[in-house]
Amino acid sequence: MTPKILVIGTGGVGSIVALALHSTKKCEVSIIVRSIYDQVSEHGFDFDSCDYGKIEGWKPDHIFKDTEEAKANGPFDYILVSTKNIPEVQKTEDVVRPLVVPGTCIVLIQNGIGGEEQLMEAFPDNYILGGISLVGSANYNGKILHNLPDHESFGTYDKRPEAQEALKQLCDIYGSSKSQCELIENLKYRRWCKLIYNACINTTTAVTGLDCGRMYFSGIREAVVYPAMKEVRAIAEADLQEKLPEGIEKMMAESDNGVYFKPSMLVDVEKGQPIELQAILGNPLRIAKKLGVEAPTLTMLYKLLSGIQFSALERRGIYKIPAEPFSNDDSPLASALI
Amino acid sequence: MTPKILVIGTGGVGSIVALALHSTKKCEVSIIVRSIYDQVSEHGFDFDSCDYGKIEGWKPDHIFKDTEEAKANGPFDYILVSTKNIPEVQKTEDVVRPLVVPGTCIVLIQNGIGGEEQLMEAFPDNYILGGISLVGSANYNGKILHNLPDHESFGTYDKRPEAQEALKQLCDIYGSSKSQCELIENLKYRRWCKLIYNACINTTTAVTGLDCGRMYFSGIREAVVYPAMKEVRAIAEADLQEKLPEGIEKMMAESDNGVYFKPSMLVDVEKGQPIELQAILGNPLRIAKKLGVEAPTLTMLYKLLSGIQFSALERRGIYKIPAEPFSNDDSPLASALI
Repeated sequence: MTPKILVIGTGGVGSIVALALHSTKKCEVSIIVRSIYDQVSEHGFDFDSCDYGKIEGWKPDHIFKDTEEAKANGPFDYILVSTKNIPEVQKTEDVVRPLVVPGTCIVLIQNGIGGEEQLMEAFPDNYILGGISLVGSANYNGKILHNLPDHESFGTYDKRPEAQEALKQLCDIYGSSKSQCELIENLKYRRWCKLIYNACINTTTAVTGLDCGRMYFSGIREAVVYPAMKEVRAIAEADLQEKLPEGIEKMMAESDNGVYFKPSMLVDVEKGQPIELQAILGNPLRIAKKLGVEAPTLTMLYKLLSGIQFSALERRGIYKIPAEPFSNDDSPLASALI
Repeated sequence: MTPKILVIGTGGVGSIVALALHSTKKCEVSIIVRSIYDQVSEHGFDFDSCDYGKIEGWKPDHIFKDTEEAKANGPFDYILVSTKNIPEVQKTEDVVRPLVVPGTCIVLIQNGIGGEEQLMEAFPDNYILGGISLVGSANYNGKILHNLPDHESFGTYDKRPEAQEALKQLCDIYGSSKSQCELIENLKYRRWCKLIYNACINTTTAVTGLDCGRMYFSGIREAVVYPAMKEVRAIAEADLQEKLPEGIEKMMAESDNGVYFKPSMLVDVEKGQPIELQAILGNPLRIAKKLGVEAPTLTMLYKLLSGIQFSALERRGIYKIPAEPFSNDDSPLASALI
């Protein structure tokens, strides 16, 4: 039977993932599009893609406007989640819960660490896969500009044969697209490797407002980014009981050399949007604490970004602060302490 | 003989200081006004002052457009400097150097610590006083809104009788205005006390973008501000060989309770202007290093603010970065390391 795949979150990553899967003709692809549903259900997406060329008005097999509508057309064999991972706004388990039935395989294509564990706890009888995306792609209101080739790596922490089988099937399908697809044995190792970039470069640019080039010229790369990377390595190696690749810090730090590149977390802060703080710093620091690894630089970045996050969440109405003048009896609404 | 006093820097503080001194009729007051010289030399300043009432078109004895013009009309017995203390833009010693003659007394009305020492080194034969200003006042393009009473404290590290005499004379003059004026014995002690606020609250709001109220509600006051204050206390007590007042941290932290107040450093960062980073964090951290006091929270705030400062100085043309794509051989222009 043709597997039914639902993609939730059609930003830069999710839209390419849906296109890649659909191109294989080996599965039925559905997507949920919330904010621009009317436009996409009528006109579809336009792609300008380094892997798939120029495509106008692309539509998958089904376009749903919300979880309810998707549920009525389910169930799905795979639910791929490529939304931002911001539990302060909405927990991933709450996003997928209405759609999960026995046998559903949930694939978390998100940054950071700890997401799969939370889903495994919420849905112990289901199969949880993780995807690590390396792709340069952005969704400008239904127009997808894709300029860095799509490379997806899928893995799982689940040793059950059914989970391994689901992983293999997904990679078989994805691998027959024009995208690069890799079945990885050590998902956690790869997640930690990517955190060397995300937990250190993304975060420091977000706090200082500097792009990667200016971070280099200002001396902040030496002063903050490298010390932070050293801490990620220490936590990772304690968690993995295995060494990270030698020189990965320098390789990551220099990967944007030559250009004034703004990582996504900086862009989000500039736009006043919530950031993936828990997956990228909160969860690694909770692991550090459990393992007794010191991480003062990451902790300070986390606390300061918690302050920046507070403003973004207040703007979304998630935190409501009292009118001025407020009373000294009003209590703090949030805590940056881990 | 009537003392001749020159005030350099007529922002919120300097304009009130000039007005207060002039109101006493016990000195001749000159000011240097740069950016709005034409307007002020024609129309003067307008004050709406809690201490001095509403005054329109106020002018002191002389208004000069630059140091050159002031020099031609000097020399002055006192030079009061109430510009911002940003050595990356201009060193205070370079600002006053053309105006200093034997006997000139320089009065530094600035935030932070270390400024007097630098002037004493540059002008060892002159008398250097320090002023600590407690005043709520802002200069909106020549209109001064003054809503928190003026309280100036003057002191000196210079034990020579002439310096003590100059200090006493200045306090006698200032004390006969409607402002509060205090002659302080322990200038350094008072500078450290004020740093409990400036080095911790100002800086953290500047990095997080949170005002004081939001800093409380977000939990950042507990997570960052209090740990930073503990470090300032440790450096101060090692430097002073004396205890700071008990409970000063809580008193400072709660001084803005009830309102969403934005400290000046946050306002400067929002405007993209350079901040008084060296006086408020750089110098205290250099003292900490010399005395072997650990200050990880302040060090991290300093590094991150150095990144923010880099952008402001780049905008001013002080740092010039190469065009994109730049070469990996281009070296860092600045260093955040202390």
